[in-house]
Amino acid sequence: MLMASEAPTSAASGGLDAAAKKTLLRKIPHGLFICGVAEGDTINGFTASWVTQGSFEPPLVVMAVRADSTSNGIIQRTRRFSLNVLAADQKDLAAVFFKPQNGIGGRFDAAPYSLGALGLPILEAALGAVECELVGEVVHGDHTVFVAEVKTAVLHRDGAALELGPTGWQYGG
Amino acid sequence: MLMASEAPTSAASGGLDAAAKKTLLRKIPHGLFICGVAEGDTINGFTASWVTQGSFEPPLVVMAVRADSTSNGIIQRTRRFSLNVLAADQKDLAAVFFKPQNGIGGRFDAAPYSLGALGLPILEAALGAVECELVGEVVHGDHTVFVAEVKTAVLHRDGAALELGPTGWQYGG
Repeated sequence: MLMASEAPTSAASGGLDAAAKKTLLRKIPHGLFICGVAEGDTINGFTASWVTQGSFEPPLVVMAVRADSTSNGIIQRTRRFSLNVLAADQKDLAAVFFKPQNGIGGRFDAAPYSLGALGLPILEAALGAVECELVGEVVHGDHTVFVAEVKTAVLHRDGAALELGPTGWQYGG
Repeated sequence: MLMASEAPTSAASGGLDAAAKKTLLRKIPHGLFICGVAEGDTINGFTASWVTQGSFEPPLVVMAVRADSTSNGIIQRTRRFSLNVLAADQKDLAAVFFKPQNGIGGRFDAAPYSLGALGLPILEAALGAVECELVGEVVHGDHTVFVAEVKTAVLHRDGAALELGPTGWQYGG
């Protein structure tokens, strides 16, 4: 997740008011999560922001991931990912994972993790995490939209979650 | 959108800790939007909460809509919807649209609208709205996950948008 990323105004946009579009899309509330993936001996973690719930039953979450990222390929091949919910005071931890982190020996440089029942990294410092299995995806834009069923959930502690708005960062538009 | 809706714990959940799952999913930030649909002479509006961005280029939004709703069928057939961004002080307007509203003669009971370039209702009272065309969908749970490209955007005025958290309402888990 590159916070500075900014899509150029597309010539193909036609009649779209790009400034109005950007202003309105930035009003969609987003959080900041650490998504974890695993393939063989490779464990990666990266910051994800474009997340929403997708169904109560079965419980589905939706997450958009940069199409050109290594972790995107891992999710497409392994059909699973973890989503770690950060606490409101863990902005610095989210920032570390803007650059995807490689996990070795049960820890990322910035934070230790355990492996959940599905073999995905669960950050010990997070409020908790869910592990999810893909049920569908939409491959169309510069991010892939993954829809996945929550299969496991671990709550370490309760508390307010980190949200994008109060950080002053932008990722949207 | 039924705020009281609550999925029963599924016997199929197996090892899933349903309480942890609910607690964690409710920490995903969500907004409150009025989604508009149109089919022939039928104009509907309803409150949508499960919305996220899905791509910068092309600009995609993702929205989950109750699978058993009339508007869901309209979106699937017409392949388009509008998304109206409410102001932070328009909680009452969002509440009106928990029960889907029928539009007649350029107004819902609670609010007048105009029709955008794609023929979809744009609430005059909202901060603004985008009109979107479907590029994909995932039909799997009790909500359909729609992925759609933003084709038009109208900003009436700037301001803070209505978010679910501060209302005290819950829709998630």
